[in-house]
Amino acid sequence: MNDPHEPLTQSVRSLIDAVIRTEVDSDRIAAAHAHVAAALEILGEHLMPGSFGVRVTPDGGSAPCGNVLIGQRNAIAPPLTVDRDDAGLVSTDVTLGAAYEGPAGHVHGGVCSLILDHLLGATAHRPDRPAFTGTLQLRYVRPTPLGRLRAEAWVEHEDGRKTYARGRILCAGLTTVEAQGIFIRPRKNRPAG
Amino acid sequence: MNDPHEPLTQSVRSLIDAVIRTEVDSDRIAAAHAHVAAALEILGEHLMPGSFGVRVTPDGGSAPCGNVLIGQRNAIAPPLTVDRDDAGLVSTDVTLGAAYEGPAGHVHGGVCSLILDHLLGATAHRPDRPAFTGTLQLRYVRPTPLGRLRAEAWVEHEDGRKTYARGRILCAGLTTVEAQGIFIRPRKNRPAG
Repeated sequence: MNDPHEPLTQSVRSLIDAVIRTEVDSDRIAAAHAHVAAALEILGEHLMPGSFGVRVTPDGGSAPCGNVLIGQRNAIAPPLTVDRDDAGLVSTDVTLGAAYEGPAGHVHGGVCSLILDHLLGATAHRPDRPAFTGTLQLRYVRPTPLGRLRAEAWVEHEDGRKTYARGRILCAGLTTVEAQGIFIRPRKNRPAG
Repeated sequence: MNDPHEPLTQSVRSLIDAVIRTEVDSDRIAAAHAHVAAALEILGEHLMPGSFGVRVTPDGGSAPCGNVLIGQRNAIAPPLTVDRDDAGLVSTDVTLGAAYEGPAGHVHGGVCSLILDHLLGATAHRPDRPAFTGTLQLRYVRPTPLGRLRAEAWVEHEDGRKTYARGRILCAGLTTVEAQGIFIRPRKNRPAG
């Protein structure tokens, strides 16, 4: 489902990167700030209370438009596009730029864990029953450079509402981070995590 | 060290939230988008190549202004302010809003791991030698609501370049996520992670 806000969100993603990387002088910073303040005033004319949440689409699917990793309205989200093949492999190809930096030139280790948490969890999701994280273990094999990355996750085995999943982040074919975790599909009316 | 870009970054943080939560019509979205595009054009007049990196301040400290969690120029960063007490406890009090959502009304489990990775790692940092994550284990005790949270981390023991750390996220005094990890101070010229 395409959200009409998506083009604006994409521009704000570019803005986040530009604020980090700009080298214009303080007068130009002030001029840019005035435009950001104007945009903020317009969007603020009518704000929903709280957060976007997860909404049901007409076709019965879910629209987590505010989600920090996949939300079409969330400029923090790269966004991640999660693919599933017939064998059950869940994967994403994503480019992480300056806004995801931890050590110089490298992806913050915690951003790797954020992506792996989401991807391993996706192996356990069912259309009407998102899974929440029970445990997650990460092993950092080597630093993850900023740039084009691939992440993969798969189910090791399932036991009732529990899914035991594994996954990894790859850069140029080399594994940088390995993960394993247990994800649980809650009973009704319990929020996923 | 205060970065002159900080007020602009703060407004972009508010903008990220407003894009998610706005309910103005498509004409107003377009008007806001025009301002964002104008700000983007100004900041883009002079961009540094690559990422901000970690720069050395005049007093010999480090200025990770682009850091995804603590960077003064990074609008993705809440930002996290890391405090250390005399007993070695590292902690942060942070409010996470709509932009950090995973399950409806709750912080994405991966955002909790991102914060804990950073905080546990901070227990191992030395002024001239940042630590990188070796392993990180997370246990999700209960869902973490959006809003005011506290995170704490401490050293369990050290073994040469290795620091064994533990930590947790608390909401209203209740632990939502527990973490333990091994953080390693690299030899010179090895990037931290």
